[in-house]
Amino acid sequence: MSETRPQLNPCIIDTTLREGAQAPGVLFGEEESAEIAHALVSLGIDMVECGHPIISDAEARRVRATVVICGAVPVLAHARARSEDIDSVKATGARWVGIFMGVNAISRNSRIRFKQPVHEVVSKAVGHAKNIGLRVRFTVEDGSRTPWSELVEGYRAALEAGADRLGFADTVGLLCPWEVEDLIGRLSREFAGHDLEVHFHNDRGMANANALSAVRAGARWISSSVNGIGERCGIADTLTLLANLDVLKWRHLRNGRALPYISKLVQAYSRLMVDRWRPIAGANAFTHVAKLHRRAVLSDERAYAWTFPETIGRVNSTDPEVLPSGRERLINRPQLMSATELRPRQRRPGDCYLMLDNSVVPDARQYCIVRRIPEMDDCGEGHADVHRHCVDSVFLFIGHGPALRGLTVEVRLGAEMFVVESPSSVFIPSGLLHSYRVLAGAGLFINHMQAGDYNSSLLDSAIFQSDSGVPVEPAVSR
Amino acid sequence: MSETRPQLNPCIIDTTLREGAQAPGVLFGEEESAEIAHALVSLGIDMVECGHPIISDAEARRVRATVVICGAVPVLAHARARSEDIDSVKATGARWVGIFMGVNAISRNSRIRFKQPVHEVVSKAVGHAKNIGLRVRFTVEDGSRTPWSELVEGYRAALEAGADRLGFADTVGLLCPWEVEDLIGRLSREFAGHDLEVHFHNDRGMANANALSAVRAGARWISSSVNGIGERCGIADTLTLLANLDVLKWRHLRNGRALPYISKLVQAYSRLMVDRWRPIAGANAFTHVAKLHRRAVLSDERAYAWTFPETIGRVNSTDPEVLPSGRERLINRPQLMSATELRPRQRRPGDCYLMLDNSVVPDARQYCIVRRIPEMDDCGEGHADVHRHCVDSVFLFIGHGPALRGLTVEVRLGAEMFVVESPSSVFIPSGLLHSYRVLAGAGLFINHMQAGDYNSSLLDSAIFQSDSGVPVEPAVSR
Repeated sequence: MSETRPQLNPCIIDTTLREGAQAPGVLFGEEESAEIAHALVSLGIDMVECGHPIISDAEARRVRATVVICGAVPVLAHARARSEDIDSVKATGARWVGIFMGVNAISRNSRIRFKQPVHEVVSKAVGHAKNIGLRVRFTVEDGSRTPWSELVEGYRAALEAGADRLGFADTVGLLCPWEVEDLIGRLSREFAGHDLEVHFHNDRGMANANALSAVRAGARWISSSVNGIGERCGIADTLTLLANLDVLKWRHLRNGRALPYISKLVQAYSRLMVDRWRPIAGANAFTHVAKLHRRAVLSDERAYAWTFPETIGRVNSTDPEVLPSGRERLINRPQLMSATELRPRQRRPGDCYLMLDNSVVPDARQYCIVRRIPEMDDCGEGHADVHRHCVDSVFLFIGHGPALRGLTVEVRLGAEMFVVESPSSVFIPSGLLHSYRVLAGAGLFINHMQAGDYNSSLLDSAIFQSDSGVPVEPAVSR
Repeated sequence: MSETRPQLNPCIIDTTLREGAQAPGVLFGEEESAEIAHALVSLGIDMVECGHPIISDAEARRVRATVVICGAVPVLAHARARSEDIDSVKATGARWVGIFMGVNAISRNSRIRFKQPVHEVVSKAVGHAKNIGLRVRFTVEDGSRTPWSELVEGYRAALEAGADRLGFADTVGLLCPWEVEDLIGRLSREFAGHDLEVHFHNDRGMANANALSAVRAGARWISSSVNGIGERCGIADTLTLLANLDVLKWRHLRNGRALPYISKLVQAYSRLMVDRWRPIAGANAFTHVAKLHRRAVLSDERAYAWTFPETIGRVNSTDPEVLPSGRERLINRPQLMSATELRPRQRRPGDCYLMLDNSVVPDARQYCIVRRIPEMDDCGEGHADVHRHCVDSVFLFIGHGPALRGLTVEVRLGAEMFVVESPSSVFIPSGLLHSYRVLAGAGLFINHMQAGDYNSSLLDSAIFQSDSGVPVEPAVSR
């Protein structure tokens, strides 16, 4: 079909913990980073990119925790072309440093300002990293807006100073696939014998296609993140990339059935939920709706599928959730709780009403209970095991007294305990361990979650299965 | 750079109202369809694809309403290769029919089963459509898995019977961009002089790139939907496509500043919310986070942007919402309502507490009020103007009496009124007009929404601006 030869078995460096950690609103802690790294290792990722340790002590600790959990899988951390940045990478125990530098006019004027010539800065930084025993990836930032001669000058200086891999970053997501083939092909020929890594942003919606085009043009390493999260519109999606490489027979997919869980884990900790029609992990990805489609899929599962969904932890569904027609169906008179039995709950005082969830209004995508707490002598011990969800939720405490006062509750958020007086709301971001119990008084407890089914919103590491179908222990005990 | 010549000024047929209406859970009514069509016309879309009228009378009415609102812009409706389907398209007033047929082995066995040879079925269907005065697009479904000879046979039969345009559907999202260039290039040469339309599904995350590659290879028409919604992972996204074509200088973008509103409108009516890092319309699309990025953008707005965001209704932001650090900051003691003044509210009895929103906990992405309603002689008239949101919400009514009884409320959903006794929940899907007022009793009214700011979640057609900056009247009065 074409004369170019794709890189067989291209390597993947996942940068969820560096680029993804730069997405708006994202703040991964040490434990979250370690848990995500553990999941990445189980997928057979070749290298894990994590953090920019010069930023802060917390960032450096996060990188160190990731290095520990990754074991034999090398970790790369980010550094500007400065000795102090590079030293801070070394101090984390990471084996690789990713030195990045913008060399074009926009970069020189608006990003990092250097007085020396580019080749001197590059040479000095890469040389320093090699001297202290790090392996080096040198990346030209905003490569797509960098004139060829400047690109080549930067890369040559890095190679001469001992860089182990060259990085090309389409930093603002500018390239189209045919431009990628041209440019990456040209770079592969110019620097034949050296490993080339590519990093594509998704601002124009083409990061995934660009990553595959780059492999075809000779790139040996692809940089990607789980769910494609990153600055602005993010980058190529690790899960989509792995599934695509498998279908193309360019790289075998290991532990494919874990893909949906890994997506959910990163959604929870990043608070960046994928939309329902996201490839691979989206709720609708293997749901067939039109009558013609449903009938065909029941007769031949390939009829409307590009892969066997079971290989990536999904199943074909011909039964989408649909809001009931008839507006009176949107109004619900709740029953004493029974329709949805909550998995982590223990003994809970008072009466509990299920106000809304998918069992009450199909496809409501919200869960809400109201619990009426009477005046009691003994409110008992824990009302729920400590647990966490993959979606945001909120607790409301409303007392029966004047101005909604009169209820005192103890709330656990992570490892901390708080005593809360009504009226109060407690916002519980996805992924945060929590529990609660009433201490005194009477009133209402309301729990509202951004998921239509309580139990399936639980983020439970036990559902993360190994290739053999055996549950994998969570990386981090809490 | 390459020898292929892109189609200058390619035409766009938007199929939000046909393919998008097939997405899981989506049900567009007549008014919603007309309002979306109106928005599409304002974007300068060349043709609007809407519905499959043989399905039901409601579907036929929906197509008819769209034909009326589109005026001079032609509407195309879907039909299997059967006379009764084609007649039902004619009856709607649509000028174009899209006849589709799977001709490969998978299609013949699992989709539509024909006893006659393909060319006879095609010939008869297209001939019938032409006879009754329709213009015809003939599409080979699942074209990417159809052998070349069968593709050509189907298209030839259609052209001989008078088809006006050939359609190629990558029905299961199988193709990579380089395969698109080969295959669409070959089809363009084989059927030179005839218009070719392409329709790419996004199952492998490459629909947008494939659409551009097809234009480069000679396709004259692109099929796409707003936000890319459709069966499973959807198709190429109209908004991303238009912005990309504009940047490539292949097609001028008209009314670009309306793109975010049109995205929001379709999100509301489809209940399919785009994720935050969606190109063009996503909340994060032009938000710059890393310190280096923020500083650079302030010094040069092109530093991390592929386009001038103002041209597509966005602005660069260097101030992302971030959850506060410190878990005690997640706990809020509400004040009597004042922080968020609700736009559509009128006189409301009782005391109202703002429990949670972005002003209380930054980036909470939820809004919740609690209103305590005392026993009253006169509850007054409307408590809020009839309004709608671009997100789902819920009302809870909880009485002060035994078993949460004791409050009676009137709720308006669309054009219907309901009397609701507590305890009750009312689920309000995004886009549904609603209002409420208390009739009798005492208790609590709780309003919970899946948005962190009440006012900006209002779906208000007045923000839809024309090219001149003048608000465009909503297409449909309610």
